[in-house]
Amino acid sequence: MGKVNEDLVKERAKCTFNVEELTYFLDGGKDKTLERKERERVILTKREELFGGVPDEYLSHKEKYENSMRKAVTLFGLLRKHQQDNNTDLTNYRNLLSGVLGASISQDGSPFGLHYIMFMPVFMSQADEKQQEKWLHRALNCSIIGSYAQTELGHGTFIRGLETTATYDPSTQEFVLHSPTLTSYKWWPGGLGNTANYCIVIAQLYSKGECHGIHSFIVQVRDEDTHMPLPGIKVGEIGVKMGLNSVNNGFLGFENVRIPRTNMLMKHAKVLEDGTYVKSKNNKLIYGAMVFVRVVIVFDSVNYLAKAITVGARYSAVRRQSQLKEGEPERQILDYVTQQDKILSAIAACYAMKMNARRLWDTFNIINDQLHQGNMERLGELHALACCLKAISTTDSSMFTTLCRLACGGHGYMTSSNLPPTYALTTASCTYEGDNTVLLLQTARFLLKTWRQIDSVPLTPTVAYLKTVSAPGHSDKWESSVEGIIRGFQIVSMRKISSCLDSMTNKVMSGMSQEDAWNTTSIQLVSAAESHSRMIVISTFYEDMSKAMKTMSAPLAAVMNQLIELYAVYWTLERLGDLLQYTSISNADVIHLRSWYEELLRKIRPNTIGLVDAFDIIDELLQSTLGASDGRVYERLMEEALKSPLNAEPVNQSFHKYLKPFMQGKL
Amino acid sequence: MGKVNEDLVKERAKCTFNVEELTYFLDGGKDKTLERKERERVILTKREELFGGVPDEYLSHKEKYENSMRKAVTLFGLLRKHQQDNNTDLTNYRNLLSGVLGASISQDGSPFGLHYIMFMPVFMSQADEKQQEKWLHRALNCSIIGSYAQTELGHGTFIRGLETTATYDPSTQEFVLHSPTLTSYKWWPGGLGNTANYCIVIAQLYSKGECHGIHSFIVQVRDEDTHMPLPGIKVGEIGVKMGLNSVNNGFLGFENVRIPRTNMLMKHAKVLEDGTYVKSKNNKLIYGAMVFVRVVIVFDSVNYLAKAITVGARYSAVRRQSQLKEGEPERQILDYVTQQDKILSAIAACYAMKMNARRLWDTFNIINDQLHQGNMERLGELHALACCLKAISTTDSSMFTTLCRLACGGHGYMTSSNLPPTYALTTASCTYEGDNTVLLLQTARFLLKTWRQIDSVPLTPTVAYLKTVSAPGHSDKWESSVEGIIRGFQIVSMRKISSCLDSMTNKVMSGMSQEDAWNTTSIQLVSAAESHSRMIVISTFYEDMSKAMKTMSAPLAAVMNQLIELYAVYWTLERLGDLLQYTSISNADVIHLRSWYEELLRKIRPNTIGLVDAFDIIDELLQSTLGASDGRVYERLMEEALKSPLNAEPVNQSFHKYLKPFMQGKL
Repeated sequence: MGKVNEDLVKERAKCTFNVEELTYFLDGGKDKTLERKERERVILTKREELFGGVPDEYLSHKEKYENSMRKAVTLFGLLRKHQQDNNTDLTNYRNLLSGVLGASISQDGSPFGLHYIMFMPVFMSQADEKQQEKWLHRALNCSIIGSYAQTELGHGTFIRGLETTATYDPSTQEFVLHSPTLTSYKWWPGGLGNTANYCIVIAQLYSKGECHGIHSFIVQVRDEDTHMPLPGIKVGEIGVKMGLNSVNNGFLGFENVRIPRTNMLMKHAKVLEDGTYVKSKNNKLIYGAMVFVRVVIVFDSVNYLAKAITVGARYSAVRRQSQLKEGEPERQILDYVTQQDKILSAIAACYAMKMNARRLWDTFNIINDQLHQGNMERLGELHALACCLKAISTTDSSMFTTLCRLACGGHGYMTSSNLPPTYALTTASCTYEGDNTVLLLQTARFLLKTWRQIDSVPLTPTVAYLKTVSAPGHSDKWESSVEGIIRGFQIVSMRKISSCLDSMTNKVMSGMSQEDAWNTTSIQLVSAAESHSRMIVISTFYEDMSKAMKTMSAPLAAVMNQLIELYAVYWTLERLGDLLQYTSISNADVIHLRSWYEELLRKIRPNTIGLVDAFDIIDELLQSTLGASDGRVYERLMEEALKSPLNAEPVNQSFHKYLKPFMQGKL
Repeated sequence: MGKVNEDLVKERAKCTFNVEELTYFLDGGKDKTLERKERERVILTKREELFGGVPDEYLSHKEKYENSMRKAVTLFGLLRKHQQDNNTDLTNYRNLLSGVLGASISQDGSPFGLHYIMFMPVFMSQADEKQQEKWLHRALNCSIIGSYAQTELGHGTFIRGLETTATYDPSTQEFVLHSPTLTSYKWWPGGLGNTANYCIVIAQLYSKGECHGIHSFIVQVRDEDTHMPLPGIKVGEIGVKMGLNSVNNGFLGFENVRIPRTNMLMKHAKVLEDGTYVKSKNNKLIYGAMVFVRVVIVFDSVNYLAKAITVGARYSAVRRQSQLKEGEPERQILDYVTQQDKILSAIAACYAMKMNARRLWDTFNIINDQLHQGNMERLGELHALACCLKAISTTDSSMFTTLCRLACGGHGYMTSSNLPPTYALTTASCTYEGDNTVLLLQTARFLLKTWRQIDSVPLTPTVAYLKTVSAPGHSDKWESSVEGIIRGFQIVSMRKISSCLDSMTNKVMSGMSQEDAWNTTSIQLVSAAESHSRMIVISTFYEDMSKAMKTMSAPLAAVMNQLIELYAVYWTLERLGDLLQYTSISNADVIHLRSWYEELLRKIRPNTIGLVDAFDIIDELLQSTLGASDGRVYERLMEEALKSPLNAEPVNQSFHKYLKPFMQGKL
């Protein structure tokens, strides 16, 4: 590493806490940090293959794919070996994939991503023992590469509406897969375009003339030896997207493709040889994989945002612009309070989401264990929690990434800053695995159901507050503290839910159908779910971080406490309309909160760089000219620009072909 | 055109007003519509050259540039001819460039854009007669292509800090241009990378050992015949960006490059032969070009957003997803109220901004005329108005474009929807020509100055309200009408400005410097400027549209009135915290406003398609699979995908090279 930018050196010297202590905490312990560093070391053994050469952004779409394949086999070859050597479990597996490695090597996703994140988990949860025996080892081993094809051109949200059919033919003991319309073509599955040779396909199951709804089938789409699409398989890639262009998203259509009966994933429901359909005893277990993916998405959101804040904070310390006072040297832009507002709120959000992702993971494991023991009690809660945290974490991550990008001015618009690709990844996650508006409406449905039964059914932990704050005699006196703010959001959430129910009841009383009443109330339902989610995020951050602070050194705990406060006050000011409407907060309180916020910015300011350094994202994975740890911003911008093939020759051929004749009036 | 989607046919049949009447109004009269259609006809004579072939998104960065040059000479060749034939004036010129043509042919900008939008206007306003004689005709004619180089690697916002020097050498009567540091390299100028051969360069003027601040120089950067960079000129392109990748943004450094004294643009300030510096008599005239560019940006924002709403609305009418009631057919997603909320608020915003762009253009012309007659009275106001409208229109356009994109689900993430490129353009405009936060702070500075002098100086029109609503005896009774809402925002703006001043005064009294007091209050200053801007946008929309409605047919006027109401109520609900804090609005009012909003959505819903059809963006310029006028969404998505070079062969070469050996465990 060359000389480090002086401003960054000074910032690091100013830091009041031990950055390593925070890194250990963020990783989940010193041992985890060392494990991560070991993984990184392994990857860096192939530094040139993975990070060298002409940057991807200069390549054509096709070249990008070919390059991503080259990198993917290198990377996943290393991971395969690492996994075999270390016998890693599911947590480790999540660590391997979630953002830090999977998404980071390519700024644009990976053609193997879905194999790990959907194909294998779904297969493991839905394939019966024989099927696992036949395929699991090959999949783990990457002898076959799978994709997961659910979404069709015409259907995403409404899974029941999928059009692909799988019709059982008892005479040959086969299913016939068919795409009856253009809109029934599978569309979006990652890796499906040119990479995967197997695919789990979701289709409407028909047997004995009856439709039994959607089920999963494992289908070979390409020849293992030649990679040619098998007969009747129409497969290709869907074209350029805003981001994720190394994911190789594909389309897939079937012309009466026959697969053996035993290719239906039969752990739960079954079709017998004669075509008799046997229902699943517990069809809710299927939710497990869906929730798992959403848990992973919440972790991804943290990782994306961690990159954005690292770039935003370091650039803000290096960049000097304008004088605050005439004649003084230009200031680091991080000294401007409007800049602190953007960068520090984003940092607080990242820490808040980190704690929530952890809690969600623990909750998932607890409830998932209960599910497998036949206890369904908390399934609704888990589903609602995963829905709303997926929605809120992706929305926030996307919003704060944009804030960081805009805070880096023009240079933040350069692809080499890595902020635009990071935004493209975060915003995609607002849509995939459940559109955020739809997910918030599902959360609202759970909240409304809970509210209706509040006096008759015991409340699960994440909604217990609804009873507390609606109890007669509960004081709604405003208190300007983190706990007071949490209570404020609880009251807001409860009142919004209550008012949605009132509003719907009135509509139904005046003759509207239940469904129309729901629809016309839906803007407010989304808003109620958002308030509930916000409350969850703030309180989880507060509770779990406060617990963790007990074993932290005092200087670090002090800063973590400031972050909790900043996050809580930020959202109070952002949602002031709600609080003014539903709680007893006064104008004087608001004025106090604004000063508190400004004071917190001032206090946290000196630790900005320490707070992002603690995420310890190595330069090779951060891939940012503006965010590299040495702060050589301008040198790197120029170095990256000089890699442009347009700079390889002094005069581009288009001058002779087009420009010169045009300037001479000949065109 | 093939068969039109049935749902779109039905939507069009439902429309309650005459779409053509609205189109004429939007264009500024039937004659203007016909002129536009004539321009489009001319362009469509080269349909295949301009719109055929492999879509740009599949090309490499270099190929994209070469293709954009090919298209640019075709397009600007047509425009040059059209301009010569029709003797067009500046308004027409703006129409030609602003979004609809300039930005639309390429979704990604044009390497000639800056020639028209900066190089020529700046040259016209700063070159003296002799210089105009020498270069203007050649520039108009495109015999030379110019760029405008102000921003440097190290300086954007703080122009005074630019480092490039132009030192006068009286012995040869030349200026010596020099880049003393890496950070002094020019960075960002459009067309500069590989296209322009001339450039207006902003540099610190030194003469007789003294620095006279920044001035403009016209510099030849490439040989007219060979296009080779001239000696001492370091020029190249800056690499891939989030968008605008056909703009060919460049960098430029000087190694003691000599240019004749007469290449300094001397309409205002001068350097005499002996090196004597002669100050500009009226250095404020220079603001003209800067304001002009911001006016154009406001128009661009309208045009970008018009595209996004056209795509969002049409797709929402075509897409069917989920049942509202069990057993019913799937609904058009536009029937869901949360979708209406997104699409219709964006449509209202587009109409609101359209009226504001027009008013800004008229105000600019009036004040610019006054300026040239030596009347500076309203310069501050014009500057503040252009600042805040540029900030608000680009922020809103970017935000609503995102809303439309997310409302189109996964397919909105496809580049072929044109929503991602449109977002990339809108979000860029939040940064260029003045970062939005900085611009709002400049507006705040003007507001604070006005507020300080409120009793001593007559108020200019856009701030006259500050006196009205702060007058003793002014009733602040809340009224739920558009006028009441405007008054509400006026009160909010006034109270925020007043509270900022109080807060700063207190800080100064307790020993803080003016500058630090400004800085620590800046979050609230931005917020005050935003409220002021929002008030301007709502009231201009209301005033100018109400005036226009008088000559509209009754059915059209009724819909326009609904749009005004929707826009006003939308922002009231978005800024509820402000209104609850600073006005007398009650919880009952809020409940009423919410029902009003829901009712407006219901009323406007049937006219959604008519409201976007009226913008009359032809398919060739809309360039969207999801938004085309025939609604053949799925067919177009598939057609576009099949153009991907990755679909040209059944097996990509990477299979043999990488994937197969990897699957066989050989890698």
